[in-house]
Amino acid sequence: MHAISFIQDLAVIMLVAGVVTILFHRFKQPVVLGYIVAGFIIGPHTPPFGLIHDEQTIKTLAELGVIFLMFCLGLEFSLRKLFKVGATAFIAAFMEITLMIWIGYEIGRWFDWNTMDSLFLGAILAISSTTIIVKALNDLKMKNERFAQLIFGVLIVEDILGIGIIALLSSIAVSGSVSPEEVFSTVGKLSLFMIVALVIGILLVPRVLAYVARFESNEMLLITVLGLCFGFCLLVVKLEYSMVLGAFLIGAIMAESRQLLKIERLIEPVRDLFSAIFFVAIGLMLDPVILWEYALPILVITCAVVLGKMLSCGLGAFIAGNDGRTSLRVGMGLSQIGEFSFIIAALGMTLQVTSSFLYPVAVAVSVLTTLMTPYLIRAADPLSLKLAQVMPKRVSRVLGMYGEWLRSIQPQGQGALLAAMIRKILLQVGVNLALVIAIFFAGGYFAPRIAEYLQGWMIKSSWQHGLIWGAALLLSLPFLIAAYRKLKALSMLLAEMGVKPEMAGRHTQRVRRIIAEVIPILSLLVIFLLLSALSASILPTNELLIGIAVVAAGVAAVLWRWFIRVHTRMQVALLETLDNHKEGGH
Amino acid sequence: MHAISFIQDLAVIMLVAGVVTILFHRFKQPVVLGYIVAGFIIGPHTPPFGLIHDEQTIKTLAELGVIFLMFCLGLEFSLRKLFKVGATAFIAAFMEITLMIWIGYEIGRWFDWNTMDSLFLGAILAISSTTIIVKALNDLKMKNERFAQLIFGVLIVEDILGIGIIALLSSIAVSGSVSPEEVFSTVGKLSLFMIVALVIGILLVPRVLAYVARFESNEMLLITVLGLCFGFCLLVVKLEYSMVLGAFLIGAIMAESRQLLKIERLIEPVRDLFSAIFFVAIGLMLDPVILWEYALPILVITCAVVLGKMLSCGLGAFIAGNDGRTSLRVGMGLSQIGEFSFIIAALGMTLQVTSSFLYPVAVAVSVLTTLMTPYLIRAADPLSLKLAQVMPKRVSRVLGMYGEWLRSIQPQGQGALLAAMIRKILLQVGVNLALVIAIFFAGGYFAPRIAEYLQGWMIKSSWQHGLIWGAALLLSLPFLIAAYRKLKALSMLLAEMGVKPEMAGRHTQRVRRIIAEVIPILSLLVIFLLLSALSASILPTNELLIGIAVVAAGVAAVLWRWFIRVHTRMQVALLETLDNHKEGGH
Repeated sequence: MHAISFIQDLAVIMLVAGVVTILFHRFKQPVVLGYIVAGFIIGPHTPPFGLIHDEQTIKTLAELGVIFLMFCLGLEFSLRKLFKVGATAFIAAFMEITLMIWIGYEIGRWFDWNTMDSLFLGAILAISSTTIIVKALNDLKMKNERFAQLIFGVLIVEDILGIGIIALLSSIAVSGSVSPEEVFSTVGKLSLFMIVALVIGILLVPRVLAYVARFESNEMLLITVLGLCFGFCLLVVKLEYSMVLGAFLIGAIMAESRQLLKIERLIEPVRDLFSAIFFVAIGLMLDPVILWEYALPILVITCAVVLGKMLSCGLGAFIAGNDGRTSLRVGMGLSQIGEFSFIIAALGMTLQVTSSFLYPVAVAVSVLTTLMTPYLIRAADPLSLKLAQVMPKRVSRVLGMYGEWLRSIQPQGQGALLAAMIRKILLQVGVNLALVIAIFFAGGYFAPRIAEYLQGWMIKSSWQHGLIWGAALLLSLPFLIAAYRKLKALSMLLAEMGVKPEMAGRHTQRVRRIIAEVIPILSLLVIFLLLSALSASILPTNELLIGIAVVAAGVAAVLWRWFIRVHTRMQVALLETLDNHKEGGH
Repeated sequence: MHAISFIQDLAVIMLVAGVVTILFHRFKQPVVLGYIVAGFIIGPHTPPFGLIHDEQTIKTLAELGVIFLMFCLGLEFSLRKLFKVGATAFIAAFMEITLMIWIGYEIGRWFDWNTMDSLFLGAILAISSTTIIVKALNDLKMKNERFAQLIFGVLIVEDILGIGIIALLSSIAVSGSVSPEEVFSTVGKLSLFMIVALVIGILLVPRVLAYVARFESNEMLLITVLGLCFGFCLLVVKLEYSMVLGAFLIGAIMAESRQLLKIERLIEPVRDLFSAIFFVAIGLMLDPVILWEYALPILVITCAVVLGKMLSCGLGAFIAGNDGRTSLRVGMGLSQIGEFSFIIAALGMTLQVTSSFLYPVAVAVSVLTTLMTPYLIRAADPLSLKLAQVMPKRVSRVLGMYGEWLRSIQPQGQGALLAAMIRKILLQVGVNLALVIAIFFAGGYFAPRIAEYLQGWMIKSSWQHGLIWGAALLLSLPFLIAAYRKLKALSMLLAEMGVKPEMAGRHTQRVRRIIAEVIPILSLLVIFLLLSALSASILPTNELLIGIAVVAAGVAAVLWRWFIRVHTRMQVALLETLDNHKEGGH
């Protein structure tokens, strides 16, 4: 019977993992390391040999582990948190990722590894491990200190950027090359997809979950959550993105639901089960012979991770205006790699673009850096004191002045309010445009299939295209109108600020009005040009286009108020979901 | 990538199951039926075809579902509950199972099915569905009525008997025949195994769990629980019992741990996930063509289940002393088959002894009877009133008199106390003897391997046997001494009761003492003969036996007090675990 050998595998995994993790816990090491060591012990490369029979099924379950890990990461992530993390997180995460990818790539080249291996090594080193850091800060009881909060902010930004890296790597691995246009188009499409998925998801998913939750059956809620999770992952895979991205996104969407706490409680045991299998499966792949062979690269990369992350994150935190001690603690806290690195290394293996040694090397570096993490965090404070002593007075005064200068140039009072308003308007315009672009993309994507249906009573393909394009435009109208109104508000604001009576004298009002009218219309024109370019495949002939534009203008004029009402209602629903949650006492 | 088609399967299963179960829930039908229907919809036999790609992996996960279902059944089961359920449950369950196996077998033969199919059909019909009944009584808000409590008692006894049926069927399927000796030896070995597993398990497992629970990590507790569960299942499989039995037993053992509530909370989502897959996998196998072809048997069997269970359980409850109305309600509440039937049907399929139609037929009967369950429970009360009206006065008076007579012969006051004491002593003697027998069995089982080790310095195999047998006897001494002491207490009690001064006159004391001494020694002799027979494979020569007996007697005499102390300590530990739990507020 097939099932018995499978149960045997599970029994061995769980028993060995149980014993080893208990040992690791006693010696205050992260449980994750225990799993990897357990996998190493029962793996085929170390005695006793061959305790696992059905490696294929175990690997399939390990992939489920990745999905649940990312899903739970998404659940813990939340848009509100992202909006709150502030400049430090963005600057530090961005510096870290850029620098680490570059360092990793250079190290790979220096060891004469091929381009793809080097590139993946860079990506592997880019992102720190949320699991390990949370565990270490918990153990050290430092979770509530300021630097810990900054670290959590950096981790949130890293998650989003990491998702982008995975999408980029997949596309690069398939095309085999890196061109700036490609990077741009991948990042653009990815952002578009993420915005659209988040907007539609947050409008729909929490409502579905609230409906199911009314039945007060844990079982049904769990099945619904799993169905949505796997279903969305599948959709994402069909769109040729990674499943990991899908799991994270649907997690982030569900994080906005009122049932978040319950979902977390239900999904946690499932995640623990499958993530244990995932980490054990990592250990299964470790071969001491390979590790020994690559001892030098492993050591070099480990040093690079610790020093590189200390430097990049620390510098990033400092540039964003933190004092030296906090910056150093942020940098040293982030000095390790973990689950994200495994996922990226696994991606390279499944896409068959990286060499087989890369995965074990990544695991070894992760194990070493993880072991060092608690010591690094503890050493940060004494080290900063020592540095302050050793540093020449002048340097430290210059550094101190930088912080003061930074605080002095930050907009305050009315200025800060204005900046916040402008940011908010730009965000709204951006979201609306993303939805419009998505509608046109979808039109282009489904055009051949729609054309088939239309074949019966509309033979000319230009007419078909005209119809599809027109429908897309009609659907987009509420969002376009909303974008137009926001842009108008923005231009009025800018005109008010930019055109002072001292300059324009008695023309002030007129100049302001012209600016306030011209900017939104110009923007709309640009948007239409962009849309035409993006929907080139279904763009109708010019005559038709004019006809459509006239019809659309007519519809817009007639239904202007209705469109605004529809859009407002949707916006309110979206914001309610985001706010409701806040009331939920989280 | 293999994983994607697997994720797709999971997505389809969860999405369809989610939607269908929500619909079923709205129409107040059990979720389990929703899963089966969902499986039927996405199955290969109904349009749209082929929504499942990787049926093998799904089936493997479905087997995990069975394990988790039985494990949770074990968690809800508890020895204390079993001791409490009283005569009604035992009589009703025993009557139900015997009658239903016979009815099922006869129906099978009547349809000209072969012996094995008929036998499995009987077993499939034997056991009612805990899941369905709990759900229906919950929905009808009748959970706390007296007849519901009786039903739960019957279900607990059924679980134990069902486990026995599974073990019996496995052994019959392998040997291909049913002989009374075989049934006897299978049941004997099974009881022995269960007692020993429960005693050792309850001594060890709760302690392990308490140790792990001190780390306050849900993850580690879950992994430990799963490790113990799968590990024990594996052990049970190695002893050639069914995994189902193992899962149930380890669940029953963990039910005695203080961490029960936490374990249940952790394991529930995992069970829900896998049991959903299990029930969907059942639906996958349904083929409308086969169902249509076997429409007549399905209808006949459905009627047989409803009427047979009504009659057997109702009669059983009545015989045990309940009034007619309660008995009828008990009988009609138990009138369906469910998850146990699927497990037995699956057993027949994996052992390849039953025809392929049996499984779908069982599922169809389960679906029909499940649909009827709530209506039957509701109809029981009106029906009992109607029956009372229709019934001739004489018959109802006779029935009423039976109840009164039954109450009159029940031991009361001192008599009841005495009966309880005797029951308790017999139970203790039984457990001790089971442990002794298990020690000798283990000695026989491991003898060849031990003999290999001994080969070096002890060549004669008779000496080797002598050593092993002697060691087994030595290990058994504490239990033998305990059994002897309990037997002595029992005989004193019996002598006190049986030999009255009116009969024996002035010899009363002497006769009593003789009886009190003779009975335990005679019993010990019988026990030794039994042990010799059971350990025939390692029984040493007669001379050696005498030598061993002398040594053992010497050791027993010298260490008498120490043995008693050791045994008492173990007994206290066992009872503490059983009692501790009660304090735990469950």
